[in-house]
Amino acid sequence: MFRSESEFVRWLQRSSPRPGARLLLGIGDDAALVRVAGGNDLVLTTDLSIEGVHFLRAVHTARSIGHRALARSLSDIAAVGGTPRFALVSLAISKQANRAWLEEFYTGLTALAKRFGVAVIGGDTAVVPERAGVDVVVAGEVRRGRALLRSGAQPGEQIFVSGRLGLSALGLRLLLSRRPGLRRSALSAQALAAHLYPLPQCVLGRYLSEKRLASALIDISDGLSTDLAHLCESSGVGARISQGLIPGPRLSAWPKSLGISPLELALHGGEDYQLLFTVPTTKASSVPRKFRGVSLSRIGEITRARELVLVRADGRPEPLRPCGYNHFRKWTA
Amino acid sequence: MFRSESEFVRWLQRSSPRPGARLLLGIGDDAALVRVAGGNDLVLTTDLSIEGVHFLRAVHTARSIGHRALARSLSDIAAVGGTPRFALVSLAISKQANRAWLEEFYTGLTALAKRFGVAVIGGDTAVVPERAGVDVVVAGEVRRGRALLRSGAQPGEQIFVSGRLGLSALGLRLLLSRRPGLRRSALSAQALAAHLYPLPQCVLGRYLSEKRLASALIDISDGLSTDLAHLCESSGVGARISQGLIPGPRLSAWPKSLGISPLELALHGGEDYQLLFTVPTTKASSVPRKFRGVSLSRIGEITRARELVLVRADGRPEPLRPCGYNHFRKWTA
Repeated sequence: MFRSESEFVRWLQRSSPRPGARLLLGIGDDAALVRVAGGNDLVLTTDLSIEGVHFLRAVHTARSIGHRALARSLSDIAAVGGTPRFALVSLAISKQANRAWLEEFYTGLTALAKRFGVAVIGGDTAVVPERAGVDVVVAGEVRRGRALLRSGAQPGEQIFVSGRLGLSALGLRLLLSRRPGLRRSALSAQALAAHLYPLPQCVLGRYLSEKRLASALIDISDGLSTDLAHLCESSGVGARISQGLIPGPRLSAWPKSLGISPLELALHGGEDYQLLFTVPTTKASSVPRKFRGVSLSRIGEITRARELVLVRADGRPEPLRPCGYNHFRKWTA
Repeated sequence: MFRSESEFVRWLQRSSPRPGARLLLGIGDDAALVRVAGGNDLVLTTDLSIEGVHFLRAVHTARSIGHRALARSLSDIAAVGGTPRFALVSLAISKQANRAWLEEFYTGLTALAKRFGVAVIGGDTAVVPERAGVDVVVAGEVRRGRALLRSGAQPGEQIFVSGRLGLSALGLRLLLSRRPGLRRSALSAQALAAHLYPLPQCVLGRYLSEKRLASALIDISDGLSTDLAHLCESSGVGARISQGLIPGPRLSAWPKSLGISPLELALHGGEDYQLLFTVPTTKASSVPRKFRGVSLSRIGEITRARELVLVRADGRPEPLRPCGYNHFRKWTA
């Protein structure tokens, strides 16, 4: 393990993505100092990833933990149409961890940071007896006044999602499953990648903001049903989505042993980090079918009635309940 | 306890300091959105406070934990001469905590935030089975190019500290002591306040930057000996400080049962959140004796030789070893 904080800091400085010209002061000082371009607004987000809550030592490698911890925050920047610039990483290292674990963690985190042009510029470190935890702060920019909020959806607007939903939740089920045979299909490889190394949709978020296509935007981190409820609550509207339009995981023979259907995974599975956005009807035809290889699917429309409705394959409407992740359920369950 | 995340978010929105005009999007959305004044640089810092490491359930009230968690980050902003503006709070709540604990935690945090004009604009929440933990991010501003760094000290410059050092460490010892009689003096009341409700020196930091008085600046969070070593290492210099000049805790009859001397507390005790700064000799007479009720004491000078020297009361010089807090010692001890 590192013998001192300064040895660790020097290692971090060496292995972190090289800072751009606008970083004035980075890792190893009291605070990080950056320059935001004039005329841009600053976007700030922070996300916890805690062992036993957000990741499991038996399932997630250190590299995946680092990647996922940053992906959560990057996705929040994508969710307002911003461009991520800087990250700060506060890490509570488990005393059981060794140097290899720490290096793998930062390798996963910094590889994703590099991919999105994000400089890791600071953070904090502590050693804890048991569970590891990390809090990743990301600062980004968005053109002045151009941030896309959850609250902009209007009745009659079309609802879109990016990518396939439920893949990450499927990946987690496969990882937890005791039947290794399940993990061999092409879909399984996709699902495992979606869970262990999700790619936040920052470029798409920025595109939606710059082209002024979306009226409201949110990322799908807690599951479609829950994040659609968040968007509708903020906008003071409802939504009606169609089962047949929801892009879930596809498998010719779905293994019953998973104990869950593709639709349930797509509706309630979390951690997909895809985007959910609304588009005025006049602009809906301008939304491309695909954006940089990621499908964009229309799944329904915003309604004046403040309720969520799922239209089944046979045309029957039923109430859609938000069943995604809720940290407070642990107290009330 | 709160029944849902949205109930908790609404409560947070109500109880958080009212945001200024430059906050565009705050608690409850994907990310916080702020506008930095043109021509200013942005300062970012993040600090962990973990149960069993940074605070103890038996010693620290929830209110003090909230106050101290924010104070750590505010002090980092003070340490570059910046003005804190916004805070994000990531809280891992222990499952054992109740609603009163959570309310007290935020009461302590937001009271300090209000005092410094800081708006709490976001964060993250999770529930953990055991130890609570919090990561506080603070974003601040400093006039373009005016941030004070650790690295600006030059040989021959004078070294100053604000306030009295070692009071917080004394307060902790009193709290841990089983002799309640120790806690009754006026010094004890001061020491307990310094430990439980430390006040970061943001106004002083800003003053040193605006008046261009200091050449290098750092806050004393790990203890004078350790933070002086940090400043000297960053500046590529050494330092010589005098025992007689160090403003430690003063008590006519020092209780031996504490097992530590006032000098040791002043040199190595952490969490004072005072400022340590260097001043060119030509400007040293411009440093006031007191700044807003806080004493500013000259304790020594910067040397070309890259070593730390403590001059004892009898004039005898001896090497000064950094003995403040080091998280990595837990692995190597």
